[in-house]
Amino acid sequence: MQFEHTYKQYDAELESVRAKVLQMGGLVEQQIVNALDALVNANSNLAESVMANDSRVNDLEIQIDEDCSHIIARRQPAAGDLRMIMMMVKTITDLERIGDEATKIARVAQKISESDRMYTPRFNEIKSMVGLVREMLRTALDAFARLDVTKTVEVARQDEQVDEQFRAAMRQLITFMLEDPRTISMSLEVLFVAKAIERIGDHAKNIAEYVVYMVKGKDVRHISLEEMERETLQS
Amino acid sequence: MQFEHTYKQYDAELESVRAKVLQMGGLVEQQIVNALDALVNANSNLAESVMANDSRVNDLEIQIDEDCSHIIARRQPAAGDLRMIMMMVKTITDLERIGDEATKIARVAQKISESDRMYTPRFNEIKSMVGLVREMLRTALDAFARLDVTKTVEVARQDEQVDEQFRAAMRQLITFMLEDPRTISMSLEVLFVAKAIERIGDHAKNIAEYVVYMVKGKDVRHISLEEMERETLQS
Repeated sequence: MQFEHTYKQYDAELESVRAKVLQMGGLVEQQIVNALDALVNANSNLAESVMANDSRVNDLEIQIDEDCSHIIARRQPAAGDLRMIMMMVKTITDLERIGDEATKIARVAQKISESDRMYTPRFNEIKSMVGLVREMLRTALDAFARLDVTKTVEVARQDEQVDEQFRAAMRQLITFMLEDPRTISMSLEVLFVAKAIERIGDHAKNIAEYVVYMVKGKDVRHISLEEMERETLQS
Repeated sequence: MQFEHTYKQYDAELESVRAKVLQMGGLVEQQIVNALDALVNANSNLAESVMANDSRVNDLEIQIDEDCSHIIARRQPAAGDLRMIMMMVKTITDLERIGDEATKIARVAQKISESDRMYTPRFNEIKSMVGLVREMLRTALDAFARLDVTKTVEVARQDEQVDEQFRAAMRQLITFMLEDPRTISMSLEVLFVAKAIERIGDHAKNIAEYVVYMVKGKDVRHISLEEMERETLQS
């Protein structure tokens, strides 16, 4: 009975850390959404609140890191659980960096809202990129929650789309700059936003790949999409 | 005796992983140096070899990850050793991403070497930035090797210098672009190189901060330079 009690408590501890990881994921998703909103609507208050909220993201990272270390030290987890814990440690690093990227977008939003805006960029490409990386992040976190590896290839494919959209946005910005060099400074700010979103896509892809390692014990980082497809579709 | 034997073996295992982390650090430093060399001398062969060598960096990351998991599973390390292992797991993630940034620089180097170069950028600022982040990386790895936290603040200060240099490089590139819009595409490539170097600085700073956690059990990520100075100078 004592053993069973301890076992249940251990399960509850693991479950609580997993819930915190998902909570952190929800928080950074909200940060992305708010940063985009602040950018598109030149809302400097909202931009400031994104920057302020980054400390909540950072606190969660530190908390989850500590929780993971405590579980390892006290519970001496077996192979499967240990893989889960190690992958949570990696996942929150990526979530924290997504939070950083959202903060960078908010910083640009603030700059733009304070500028005299002789040239106001349109954000169609940026919005579409954010839509895509947000979907990637959700899919990755959902895969993490369900320990479902079947969506990893999808996330990796979307990451290629994001990269393509980034290149398209860059070509468009170059055209703007050539047509009117006065837009150069502002265009570069938009370019940095596009770069930040592209990074968010990379981090979401990392998270989806960790799930494969967690479930299959196979590391699919650094392999081609075709190989990844083979690995994740094998049952 | 049996116990002592096992204990020594455990120490040797930990030591071997630490040596691999340093080896990985040396490898990514070489990748940075070669990528810069390829860029400055428009050497496309060297650029290609940097891209090819990235798989060695990735392999080391996977290997060290596995080594760390094995040690945890079999040795049930105590608090101090566990912190060391967790921080190695984080350190190699940053080293791997430094490798990625070196690859991005190599990719630009290749592009530039293949272009007809009606406008050849000078790389003074880039060279100086690389000099600085290389020093940061060395200092961070040295701090890791000696478990010495006294250099962390220095690395964090240098990171601020790198950020300042990045902004200066950007202002200069904007001037170029305004003076001659035909330089826009090439200037953006150089800007991405500067951005990659700035990221390398961020990663080196992360590594230096992990050492503080390893040694002091205190997390100095996300705190101000002044607080960090207080934490690391307390004995």
